[in-house]
Amino acid sequence: MEHTPTTVTACLIIIGNEILSGRTQDKNLAYLAVKLNEVGVQLREVRVVPDVESTIIETVNECRAKFNYIFTTGGIGPTHDDITTACIAKAFGVAVHRHPEAEKALRAYIPPERINEARLKMADVPVGSTLIANSVSAAPGYVIGNVHVMAGVPNIMQAMLGEILPTLRGGSTVESVSVTTDVLEGTLADGLTAIQNRYPHTDIGSYPNFVNGKGITTLVVRSADAAANKSAHDEILELIRKLAGNVIERP
Amino acid sequence: MEHTPTTVTACLIIIGNEILSGRTQDKNLAYLAVKLNEVGVQLREVRVVPDVESTIIETVNECRAKFNYIFTTGGIGPTHDDITTACIAKAFGVAVHRHPEAEKALRAYIPPERINEARLKMADVPVGSTLIANSVSAAPGYVIGNVHVMAGVPNIMQAMLGEILPTLRGGSTVESVSVTTDVLEGTLADGLTAIQNRYPHTDIGSYPNFVNGKGITTLVVRSADAAANKSAHDEILELIRKLAGNVIERP
Repeated sequence: MEHTPTTVTACLIIIGNEILSGRTQDKNLAYLAVKLNEVGVQLREVRVVPDVESTIIETVNECRAKFNYIFTTGGIGPTHDDITTACIAKAFGVAVHRHPEAEKALRAYIPPERINEARLKMADVPVGSTLIANSVSAAPGYVIGNVHVMAGVPNIMQAMLGEILPTLRGGSTVESVSVTTDVLEGTLADGLTAIQNRYPHTDIGSYPNFVNGKGITTLVVRSADAAANKSAHDEILELIRKLAGNVIERP
Repeated sequence: MEHTPTTVTACLIIIGNEILSGRTQDKNLAYLAVKLNEVGVQLREVRVVPDVESTIIETVNECRAKFNYIFTTGGIGPTHDDITTACIAKAFGVAVHRHPEAEKALRAYIPPERINEARLKMADVPVGSTLIANSVSAAPGYVIGNVHVMAGVPNIMQAMLGEILPTLRGGSTVESVSVTTDVLEGTLADGLTAIQNRYPHTDIGSYPNFVNGKGITTLVVRSADAAANKSAHDEILELIRKLAGNVIERP
């Protein structure tokens, strides 16, 4: 599937020491993955990188050459540790300028007595960027080339992604169908391999877990072909029946 | 800090379509980050990659050359989509063999009537690997070179990491101290920059968030030098007082 013309790919770059230190749990990856798939864009890789200029620049340049779309989260606020914009500008070899529309949006949102240079820094974007509106707190994101720069705070990121989604040119949407069973992976394995071989254009995933100390397995069939997914899924249900297993609720 | 001899670095490679599709929320990153820091190893990058052989091999080879330690999660179960071991072996240019101790552990754990080839596949490791015991479900992880291969299921991953931690040679441990305030980032920014400049060997992070629609800011000082952290933290508390702000509980 990877190189068929209808597969449009994306990479998410999560910028921030707070994720790498374990202090903050990322909440953007899963949201982005689901929303992108709805418009036919497949999240194919995620990088979590620290607030280190050389790492951010290298990562952005490597990834923007490899994937159709890049999304970044984090590092576009008003404080000294917000270095994403400076890095993106360097990655593209352009200067940073204060965007008049962004400044206008910030001045309309921020009470006049709070306007200061730190807050106005949030109107600075790489030359050649197009703004992404921020309906939550005014400070915009932006697009440059195939790179979409968003805030890290989840509700702001979600608002920005809402602005971005209609602008993306997606390919096939991946449909999925899943079932959870009390049959263990190791018991299912041979039958599953046979089903996977009969449906080579679907991806069949097998995910073990524990519920109250008992092993369970969730089986997920994914592909752009809903009919093939359904057939493979029906065969999996039949396999579970043959193995005297039960379909159970996904925990 | 990045190249001082006492900084020992790590990279986590999360292998699995289920994370990239948004179906499953990763629960291993934050746990690993905190536990590694306790033994003086700093998590510096995370990659989330799909179950695609070429991507896994490239990622492992790129990262094992760049960081002191590599950890992988996912893809070492008994089903067709568990391709991590085959990929790690190819990345190191070695064959896969059935490890006698691993087979023994599996046969001791699995009821005889359930022993099958799929389950025994979990005893297959790259030649030259050292096993990592799995006290939860017997099927081991392994270490080859600087790469630690672990299960993706969180309680199994945690058990394996418990075996690994005493074997790591860590450097400095990063201490952190933090405070949350109702003063907004944009108001703190100038004072924070000055404090960061006075404590160049600490990393001062500023993390905005919303609680009941009101903006708050958490300020984190991190470095190996607890005394410097405390001084910088005291100056941050003084800055908050000067700005007539309140210290509040972290949500």
